[in-house]
Amino acid sequence: MQANSHSAVAQVSIDLAERSYPIVIGARLLGDPLTYQHLPRAACALVVSNSTVAPLYAAQLTQALQARYDKVLSVTLPDGEAHKDWPTLQLIFDALLENGCDRKTVLFALGGGVVGDMTGFAAASYMRGVPFVQVPTTLLAQVDSSVGGKTAINHPLGKNMIGAFYQPLQVVCDLDVLKTLPPRELSAGLAEVIKYGPIADMAFLDWIDANLDAMLAKEPAALAHAIQRSCEIKAWVVGQDERESGLRAILNFGHTFGHAIESGLGYGQWLHGEGVGCGMVMAAHLSQRLGLVEPTFVERLTRLVRRAGLPVKGPQLSSTDNAGRYLALMRIDKKSEAGEIRFVVIDGPGKATVRSAPDALVREVINACCA
Amino acid sequence: MQANSHSAVAQVSIDLAERSYPIVIGARLLGDPLTYQHLPRAACALVVSNSTVAPLYAAQLTQALQARYDKVLSVTLPDGEAHKDWPTLQLIFDALLENGCDRKTVLFALGGGVVGDMTGFAAASYMRGVPFVQVPTTLLAQVDSSVGGKTAINHPLGKNMIGAFYQPLQVVCDLDVLKTLPPRELSAGLAEVIKYGPIADMAFLDWIDANLDAMLAKEPAALAHAIQRSCEIKAWVVGQDERESGLRAILNFGHTFGHAIESGLGYGQWLHGEGVGCGMVMAAHLSQRLGLVEPTFVERLTRLVRRAGLPVKGPQLSSTDNAGRYLALMRIDKKSEAGEIRFVVIDGPGKATVRSAPDALVREVINACCA
Repeated sequence: MQANSHSAVAQVSIDLAERSYPIVIGARLLGDPLTYQHLPRAACALVVSNSTVAPLYAAQLTQALQARYDKVLSVTLPDGEAHKDWPTLQLIFDALLENGCDRKTVLFALGGGVVGDMTGFAAASYMRGVPFVQVPTTLLAQVDSSVGGKTAINHPLGKNMIGAFYQPLQVVCDLDVLKTLPPRELSAGLAEVIKYGPIADMAFLDWIDANLDAMLAKEPAALAHAIQRSCEIKAWVVGQDERESGLRAILNFGHTFGHAIESGLGYGQWLHGEGVGCGMVMAAHLSQRLGLVEPTFVERLTRLVRRAGLPVKGPQLSSTDNAGRYLALMRIDKKSEAGEIRFVVIDGPGKATVRSAPDALVREVINACCA
Repeated sequence: MQANSHSAVAQVSIDLAERSYPIVIGARLLGDPLTYQHLPRAACALVVSNSTVAPLYAAQLTQALQARYDKVLSVTLPDGEAHKDWPTLQLIFDALLENGCDRKTVLFALGGGVVGDMTGFAAASYMRGVPFVQVPTTLLAQVDSSVGGKTAINHPLGKNMIGAFYQPLQVVCDLDVLKTLPPRELSAGLAEVIKYGPIADMAFLDWIDANLDAMLAKEPAALAHAIQRSCEIKAWVVGQDERESGLRAILNFGHTFGHAIESGLGYGQWLHGEGVGCGMVMAAHLSQRLGLVEPTFVERLTRLVRRAGLPVKGPQLSSTDNAGRYLALMRIDKKSEAGEIRFVVIDGPGKATVRSAPDALVREVINACCA
């Protein structure tokens, strides 16, 4: 591997004092030893991946890391949100302890959001904290979940209920890995890209409108810009509110409804990004009914979500009281306080806020937005 | 409950910038609403205890908390180190989610070190972090494990391998709860009290020598001083090195050998403090063989550990290669680096340091120190 094969097109910094770190974005990064040259030395590295991604990229990453670490181990998790649980997390701890990995060991999360969340939580917890690096292989993970230090596993009663705020040392967004991304996964990632428009940057939403087809066709320049701008917005938000005591909650636009869909259908039925896409449409409707945005805004967002290949109608979660089921599921959202659901709503284009809403109004939205 | 029933005799501060918190020490604290008057408001509090402690003190604590929290829930864990594992931790998450507890919920750890470590890790992980309070009911927890923010559960392959650094809001050391402490548990706590002498304060060791009988007789004034001085030393160390990047490791004096004993015999056979007591004797022998202390120092410490009611001879962990088994178990200690065991040794009375030692020398120590 030669030095000039390294091709970072952009770098975004997450500014969190002594926990600051870079997100590098570019082609041919994953398999290049230079990508990892600033990481701390250790006796051992562990690559965590899943059964879908490991056959595609684990060998490349392992080879690149062997230039820096004497021992590069790997563990392959079963693929999918349904496995984002303790027994699967335990596979990582087993691998670390069976191989005598000490507390300087560096973990590498090679995969999508599930692998990143689990590897991050394992790194946060192993010996009370070892360093880790995100190498996201889905668009969704590159633009959202690998950045910002939220890590977690699911509990049978709620998504991401057990986890930690724990920042990686580095995020490596290799554009080439998106070539093998299935269309459904690409669309799921676009949901989180679209999200950044209404909550923070309407000019970016205009850009997405104009470049959606290019992104769906996986044109590298379009994807690179989408990733960079998404990461910049996320970095700006996380830099101000790492532990979600306020502002950061706006990044959950679409997620309150989306999580209810994901958990109501059973994890893995809808992809996370599909829940978020549909959830944004529902949250936009709620914003409109609260008098915060115009119907044209809701229509525009709905059209964009649909064009991205995402569902715009929520599924039925109960044959007797569908809206009631949504409400019950949303009440265990982490943003809820004293049983009151807190929604991220659009408070005029490009600006989000968090507020509660009367159950009756939310029921109307659910009834209007479900298939 | 009247205001003047509140009787804090001392307060020690853990100084960690925005994570600073007080340790209050005194009589009649646990059941007094005033003890909790500075805690944040929340819809809900959860008291976590175990099957031994809950019948003694959970009602008192719950009643005191009802003055501040609308809903005070409780969960009772099975007692003992053998249950410091994921399935037991899950009981806490189940209770929180089944009751719709939000992320302002305050957890209260009512029990010894195991309850404190598990409640702390649950608090660190539930919704990525909720506040918690330590209400230690053993001497060991009051002088050591409840202070400093180390939380963890065990893995079958090693003690405290999965956890977090996560500070409580407050530590409440009620002297009255020690009245119900069994003698074996009192001795186990004295091991950690004795520890602070050789690593940091020989004048305190002199005081312990002179007051050991008073402590064994549970004289309140003696116990109060022991708790206060132990917490002051721990606060001083933790304040300088919260996440154990250096100095803090000295608090593990006796723990490397001790953990090997605990895990080699199976958790729960020896109490943690018993392992530490015997482990300090072994570590003192190692210090002597490394030429760091005189034989008289080792003899003095051994005598004190024995007088405290603690074992001074290590158990046989293998009928074929006992020393080899100790070494293998110690190699997975968290302080190990690249397979090399790091021992806390006494580098002259009142001063500890961390270093490695040749296997042959460690074998000699084990052979000399095992029954």
